[in-house]
Amino acid sequence: MEIAVAIFEQVTALDAVGPYEVLQRLPGAQVRFVGHRKGEVRTDNGFLGLMVDCTFGEVTAPDIVLIPGGIGTRALVHDGVILDWIRRAHETSRFTTSVCTGSLLLAAAGLLKGQKATTHFSARPMLLKYGAVPTEERIVQEGKIITAAGVSSGIDMALHLAEQLTDVTTAQALQLMIEYDPQPPHDAGALHKVDASVLLRVQELARDKS
Amino acid sequence: MEIAVAIFEQVTALDAVGPYEVLQRLPGAQVRFVGHRKGEVRTDNGFLGLMVDCTFGEVTAPDIVLIPGGIGTRALVHDGVILDWIRRAHETSRFTTSVCTGSLLLAAAGLLKGQKATTHFSARPMLLKYGAVPTEERIVQEGKIITAAGVSSGIDMALHLAEQLTDVTTAQALQLMIEYDPQPPHDAGALHKVDASVLLRVQELARDKS
Repeated sequence: MEIAVAIFEQVTALDAVGPYEVLQRLPGAQVRFVGHRKGEVRTDNGFLGLMVDCTFGEVTAPDIVLIPGGIGTRALVHDGVILDWIRRAHETSRFTTSVCTGSLLLAAAGLLKGQKATTHFSARPMLLKYGAVPTEERIVQEGKIITAAGVSSGIDMALHLAEQLTDVTTAQALQLMIEYDPQPPHDAGALHKVDASVLLRVQELARDKS
Repeated sequence: MEIAVAIFEQVTALDAVGPYEVLQRLPGAQVRFVGHRKGEVRTDNGFLGLMVDCTFGEVTAPDIVLIPGGIGTRALVHDGVILDWIRRAHETSRFTTSVCTGSLLLAAAGLLKGQKATTHFSARPMLLKYGAVPTEERIVQEGKIITAAGVSSGIDMALHLAEQLTDVTTAQALQLMIEYDPQPPHDAGALHKVDASVLLRVQELARDKS
């Protein structure tokens, strides 16, 4: 089973690495990190280099397509190479998936027209602009397309996907292998769970980094 | 604030990338991926290449030390270069942290003698061998040393750490930025939560990959 994870300049690392860490443990899984050209791409803040091992032209019919997000998606919604690759890979994929603002690329490729989909909470208006119907759900599955909300949601998405590819016991085994027994110190991981002071701090932190 | 994440051959990617994705958003954070030599290292299964940007010799006094785990730690418990680096960096660090079997390296460096610590559930006996007192907790803090359990626990650990470095509002903002509102499909992320069939599948999957 070939799993293609697209990576690009200014990708958000956890969007890609969260699901990868689940899916790479599936029996027979071969994970390929694909991109425009082989070699290093840097994450959104530039702090981490990830290696593209295969070009889009080399991985044309993966079983699973995974599109992570990141600030880099804002340029890629106009990039014919990645959008064509997504459209063609989707024709034969078993599942086509995204994490965070990766769904903007699925939408820009025309895959989400009139369909329910999710993304990072800050990007819902953009998803709407591309003709999708944004929801506040953490995971949205419409046929073989699965979109996940912001960054860390890719882990949950990958566990759902793994169960559809195998069985409940295997999905639970994968969850145990990564000891995914979440214990966040606060219940602050969704927009409707925080107060205005937290939102203000998000804006300050985002400005600090851009 | 300098955050040094040690990476090495056969590192588990999510151990490093989970906490990185939280901590890189801290005000003033500079994250350095450090290793024996600059250039690419491959994750435990070989599927992903991560870039070492700085050698251990170039990052001698980071504020935060983060040691991820992975099958590669089994060789490194005998590697004087990384163990010396951990010992020296720990002398001046604000916090010295590990995820998963990264705690085996803290222990091999002599930092955990007689101290409570945690690791991946499968590695508790090894942690005991190095003189630490393994627990089943997800996060263990002893003074300025924080150890986290398997793989995904690094995200929880980083949120705890972020709060100690800043304040509750900032930690909640970081949690929201990565939309960490976990919704795993099953409650199977800890050893005591699964039945024997899941454990058997873990063994089969691990064998399949080794």
